[in-house]
Amino acid sequence: MKAEFSLFFIIEVIGTIAFASSGAMVAIKKQLDLLGVVVLGVTTAVGGGLLRDIIIGNVPPAMFQDPLYVLLAFFTVMILFIIVRHNQRILAGRSIETYEKVMNIFDAVGLGAFTVVGIDTAILSGYGEYHFLIIFLGVITGVGGGILRDIMAGQTPYVLRKHIYACASIAGAILYAGLLEHINGNAAMLIGACSVVLIRVLATRFCWNLPTATQKN
Amino acid sequence: MKAEFSLFFIIEVIGTIAFASSGAMVAIKKQLDLLGVVVLGVTTAVGGGLLRDIIIGNVPPAMFQDPLYVLLAFFTVMILFIIVRHNQRILAGRSIETYEKVMNIFDAVGLGAFTVVGIDTAILSGYGEYHFLIIFLGVITGVGGGILRDIMAGQTPYVLRKHIYACASIAGAILYAGLLEHINGNAAMLIGACSVVLIRVLATRFCWNLPTATQKN
Amino acid sequence: MKAEFSLFFIIEVIGTIAFASSGAMVAIKKQLDLLGVVVLGVTTAVGGGLLRDIIIGNVPPAMFQDPLYVLLAFFTVMILFIIVRHNQRILAGRSIETYEKVMNIFDAVGLGAFTVVGIDTAILSGYGEYHFLIIFLGVITGVGGGILRDIMAGQTPYVLRKHIYACASIAGAILYAGLLEHINGNAAMLIGACSVVLIRVLATRFCWNLPTATQKN
Repeated sequence: MKAEFSLFFIIEVIGTIAFASSGAMVAIKKQLDLLGVVVLGVTTAVGGGLLRDIIIGNVPPAMFQDPLYVLLAFFTVMILFIIVRHNQRILAGRSIETYEKVMNIFDAVGLGAFTVVGIDTAILSGYGEYHFLIIFLGVITGVGGGILRDIMAGQTPYVLRKHIYACASIAGAILYAGLLEHINGNAAMLIGACSVVLIRVLATRFCWNLPTATQKN
Repeated sequence: MKAEFSLFFIIEVIGTIAFASSGAMVAIKKQLDLLGVVVLGVTTAVGGGLLRDIIIGNVPPAMFQDPLYVLLAFFTVMILFIIVRHNQRILAGRSIETYEKVMNIFDAVGLGAFTVVGIDTAILSGYGEYHFLIIFLGVITGVGGGILRDIMAGQTPYVLRKHIYACASIAGAILYAGLLEHINGNAAMLIGACSVVLIRVLATRFCWNLPTATQKN
Repeated sequence: MKAEFSLFFIIEVIGTIAFASSGAMVAIKKQLDLLGVVVLGVTTAVGGGLLRDIIIGNVPPAMFQDPLYVLLAFFTVMILFIIVRHNQRILAGRSIETYEKVMNIFDAVGLGAFTVVGIDTAILSGYGEYHFLIIFLGVITGVGGGILRDIMAGQTPYVLRKHIYACASIAGAILYAGLLEHINGNAAMLIGACSVVLIRVLATRFCWNLPTATQKN
């Protein structure tokens, strides 16, 4: 997961912070203890990449080769824990709304970054020919951490329930994989990642949802 | 998972359709959206094989080498989704009973097929000597998709609760692995698969259940 | 997981029995049937090692190379099942308290044994240089079985909720990995394992808990 140019490094950092925060908040709301908060936060941040590496047999997984993102997730979680602990009314106040809006955008950035990084890792591991595989690995890198978070927290995975979340990742992954054969790699990566962010932000703003088979519609 | 002779291909197709349908129905009943229905349906159909390939380090996993079964599961789920969406009373009507009876038999066929395919894959990957491993892999190929479905849907895995489900798979796996050393491979495979189907159908018909440690008995 | 000297073999046996029992008791309390009890019991006992082997690509995983611990877990579970079934009041009586006290100590021994075995396996597989990885693998070998048990049983993983459980494993893992570079391997292993047991026993005795971010404190 070594960043190849600095812009990309920055958006991966933003994504890691956002994912770690989302895991930590789920744990805090469930009143898990410090360790639970750390585990859920770090799992959300690096779990998607871990699943990807397990599926393609990357040994040892990237999170262990360069623990930078694990450390970043860890410190994010610790800071969040300390802030909430020393100012518990923060969870009910108006600042939480602002926080969630900012985090939603950060989370979209993370989803975009992780999706294209997942595809990139798969291609670098020599699976560029398997189009379905690389798209799947991009999506699992993007949404896998959140799935693990929700399974461990005992709630139906968010990705199965709401707001065009995995769909944004799938669309960006297909776009990136498709563009790769026609244009410069970095440009394709940026377009893929940005399209994920755009779809997510629009979906949240306008409450887009996929249809369900019964009732609600 | 390439089928070696056409009969076997047909029963794998039947199994895939049944497993995908069972995942999709769980998602529909939980009112998940279209993506949730697709993810649970496809996971149920190919998740067992994915777990098997992860355990024995088959890279990339069979579902990516030949996406036929993923596509088949996808289209099965889409058709089911469209049918339910356009005729919602179908979930309450009498036709659902017939549907569930047919699907139970299809599901038994799938369990049988996937169990022996799992063993076959393990042997072809060179683990024929590890008897416990190949039986385990046969069973995990058969029941793993359903376990992933239930974990993602937040319910206690069906396989842990009812009706001689995993037991049928275990019995068939042991039978196939045992017969392999004495008779022709294809014959052993058919006998193994059929015994799974037979045990499942009889267990459902006569409500066989394993004992529990407390109360109910 | 072959034991290298007999003391170590004994504590691994104790750990396997304790872990298998804890899984079986969860299943019995959830009124799962015999198969559910066996699956949860065996998963708790060997699941941590399986996760470790999947992450570092040990193929086939240790539990299949030497099924001794699987068999031991299986017989432990069967005996427990038979005892509870033939004397159901045992679950309410005073003997259950003694049983739980003994099992808590056994469980601490298991946690200590599995943690250092996990690190050892990682080092033998050639990952001694990756300090974070070997500590992680030690902890996952120690707590992974319990996490799988709780996910399958549909409850928030125990390790995320209570009593300095994973923390004991983490502390012992760091201690073992740190000492390894300075003192004899067997001595380091013993000290690492004993420190896990000590922390766990003290934590249970004095109800140590990690802080939570909200309310309780």
